[in-house]
Amino acid sequence: MSEHLSTDPYKGVRDFYPADWAKMAAMFAQFRATLAKWGYEEYNASPLERAELYEAKTSEEIVNEQTYTFTDRGDRKVTLRPEMTPTLARMVAGKRRELALPLRWFSIPNVFRYERPQKGRLREHYQLNVDLVGIAANEADIEIIRIASELLKAFGAKESDYIVRVNSRALLTAACAAAGLTGEAAKRYLHLLDKKSKMDPAAFEAARSSIAPRDPLELVENEAGASPELAHEKRALLDTIDALKRRGVGNAVFDATLTRGFDYYTGIVFEIFDTNPANPRSLFGGGRFDRLVALFGNDPVPAVGFGMGDVTFADFLETHGLLPKGDGGVPELYLGTPSAGDIPAAQAFADTLRAQGSRVFVNLTEKSLGDQIKDAVKRGIPFFVAYGADEVANQTVRMKILRTGEEEGLPLRDLPLRLRSGS
Amino acid sequence: MSEHLSTDPYKGVRDFYPADWAKMAAMFAQFRATLAKWGYEEYNASPLERAELYEAKTSEEIVNEQTYTFTDRGDRKVTLRPEMTPTLARMVAGKRRELALPLRWFSIPNVFRYERPQKGRLREHYQLNVDLVGIAANEADIEIIRIASELLKAFGAKESDYIVRVNSRALLTAACAAAGLTGEAAKRYLHLLDKKSKMDPAAFEAARSSIAPRDPLELVENEAGASPELAHEKRALLDTIDALKRRGVGNAVFDATLTRGFDYYTGIVFEIFDTNPANPRSLFGGGRFDRLVALFGNDPVPAVGFGMGDVTFADFLETHGLLPKGDGGVPELYLGTPSAGDIPAAQAFADTLRAQGSRVFVNLTEKSLGDQIKDAVKRGIPFFVAYGADEVANQTVRMKILRTGEEEGLPLRDLPLRLRSGS
Repeated sequence: MSEHLSTDPYKGVRDFYPADWAKMAAMFAQFRATLAKWGYEEYNASPLERAELYEAKTSEEIVNEQTYTFTDRGDRKVTLRPEMTPTLARMVAGKRRELALPLRWFSIPNVFRYERPQKGRLREHYQLNVDLVGIAANEADIEIIRIASELLKAFGAKESDYIVRVNSRALLTAACAAAGLTGEAAKRYLHLLDKKSKMDPAAFEAARSSIAPRDPLELVENEAGASPELAHEKRALLDTIDALKRRGVGNAVFDATLTRGFDYYTGIVFEIFDTNPANPRSLFGGGRFDRLVALFGNDPVPAVGFGMGDVTFADFLETHGLLPKGDGGVPELYLGTPSAGDIPAAQAFADTLRAQGSRVFVNLTEKSLGDQIKDAVKRGIPFFVAYGADEVANQTVRMKILRTGEEEGLPLRDLPLRLRSGS
Repeated sequence: MSEHLSTDPYKGVRDFYPADWAKMAAMFAQFRATLAKWGYEEYNASPLERAELYEAKTSEEIVNEQTYTFTDRGDRKVTLRPEMTPTLARMVAGKRRELALPLRWFSIPNVFRYERPQKGRLREHYQLNVDLVGIAANEADIEIIRIASELLKAFGAKESDYIVRVNSRALLTAACAAAGLTGEAAKRYLHLLDKKSKMDPAAFEAARSSIAPRDPLELVENEAGASPELAHEKRALLDTIDALKRRGVGNAVFDATLTRGFDYYTGIVFEIFDTNPANPRSLFGGGRFDRLVALFGNDPVPAVGFGMGDVTFADFLETHGLLPKGDGGVPELYLGTPSAGDIPAAQAFADTLRAQGSRVFVNLTEKSLGDQIKDAVKRGIPFFVAYGADEVANQTVRMKILRTGEEEGLPLRDLPLRLRSGS
């Protein structure tokens, strides 16, 4: 065979070498630690889902164009999940009677989209999903938005680094109704509104006036009294935003133009934007979806949540100098061996260190001790100790602190404690 | 729409509700903690791979029958990885010049096989992969087998619970050559040997004598002197097994019939068997594969490793009473609210507990306090505290220890410390 295999990964997906994965793992560890404090528990599922799960809420055309969907040999249509919320709804519905509501659940699935790879638009990414299921009251909306904000703060972000835009689908629907738009017309208007920020203002106005001769947004702003529903929904939303400001989300603002893409939202919607003027983009968002679980034949179960993609979020953290270094997985000690014959004894000594919790990398090569030290530096391991016949005879080692080049002598038995005290 | 969506997952894959995932996470956490002590770092990759990665070492027929392979809209053949080793070899080859050998790497990928679902044979499972890349010496074989054994011990297994069967492909190849079998004939013999334990002995002997009139296994056992290579490989293997026994793997044994399925093994192969007489099955195994990286056009890079599936391993742990309970994700405190109006203050108080590291579940429902206590018990949360106007006024709470029903009064400010001390 003269043709060699390519070392490239499949187009649009990532390889995570240990240094890359350590950064992801450090980010995920912070997600998990923060969410545990709020009483959220982690769930998971397969990336393979029956295709009908997505066809229910989306046209088959979109499912086929934007998802990985294929037919298995049992003639089943299978989709690689493009998002986690339908899976969440399926799982909740599947054990509706056994599960004690509310559910405070999160997951960090990989999700797949079939799109042309471009900067920040991969075919696979990880997405933190956080959901509070079973509470219709706005205390649930407040908790979810607070958690979204607390996650950013857990990484060291300040409220000036981002802004939390909040709106309500119920308010938009009431405004549409007050403007004479219902059913398909209201849906068309919301889809247009969703594109507003990317459109030329004149083009938006032209399209808007053809769909909605009376502007729903103007009713929201100036004529809330035009309909009792509109007035009620506006008051409720503003109250929630006030509560958010008082209760730890000082950077929450009302944004009547915010819609969020998914059709399944029914109440509050929110989106977190980077305030960096060089890159004022949307970081992530979520909302309330009270009718999704009912698609599975159950009573409606109220739910609110959000999804946060790893790529956009890591970019935000990096821009603001907040990305965790992720060096927690690197060994603490490089145990050098003067000769290959010393390896068995070095491994046995490493075992005693491991038993006390140390992370030890033992040299197995025939490199010189000098080259072993260089190797330890290249690997980012902080301490080096050579272990051969002399060390065994004297029961002492010299430990090299690779960051400074300093050395210190110490009895073998003191090494575990010395490693724990760090550099 | 009168037809409801099914709540079933796709055939042959699993939903992980929080209690299920907590068990997986506890198992994975033990993998990670143990491997970190040996200086192993975690890597990862997408489950989507170019199909040619598997076609190289396997016939297209097998790839199409046992893997999920489909064609994407760019006319690329994509496979959901059935195992991780080809991905590992691809990644090593892809950064061959930048990476400092040896690599001590592990990963816990989900892998996919298209097979009829049956007990223990899912279409998707997780598989711990541990590899030591870049060392040809048998110290690497010893380290990898020791780690396989140490992983079992880390969960509390005793050496009497399992046995480590060890063989060498190099020895089998030398025995085949001494028996006059080379190339395809030797391969056919190894494939037959791989099925020996599942075959009727007479049927095996008949098939064996037609492929190999002179029995390679008999040469291994009685006539090692028949060829210098055979004698050398047998001596080397027995030395390695002796070293294993002396160095912490007291239950290592030579098993000349062990082959392991994959064609890519080149040296030592091993398999760990449950000694439970009711279910003496193979738990997992691995071996040396020194020629896989070279498929990508690089110089050969020696490597040895193993893969361990989550289902078989969890069954083993459960059988022996060693499965971690995985209750680490459950909140510590259920903060009850006498009325809905108390929720904002309860959340604010929960914030002060969270800031000190406690995991707090705040009630958001209008359930009575009695029902909230029942809810806390159902969720397995150990402590309950009601937080309303009285508690705010007196700055004290009564904490209920749900396991025993006991109550104790304490000042608000002492609660974080009390939670940390546990029940």
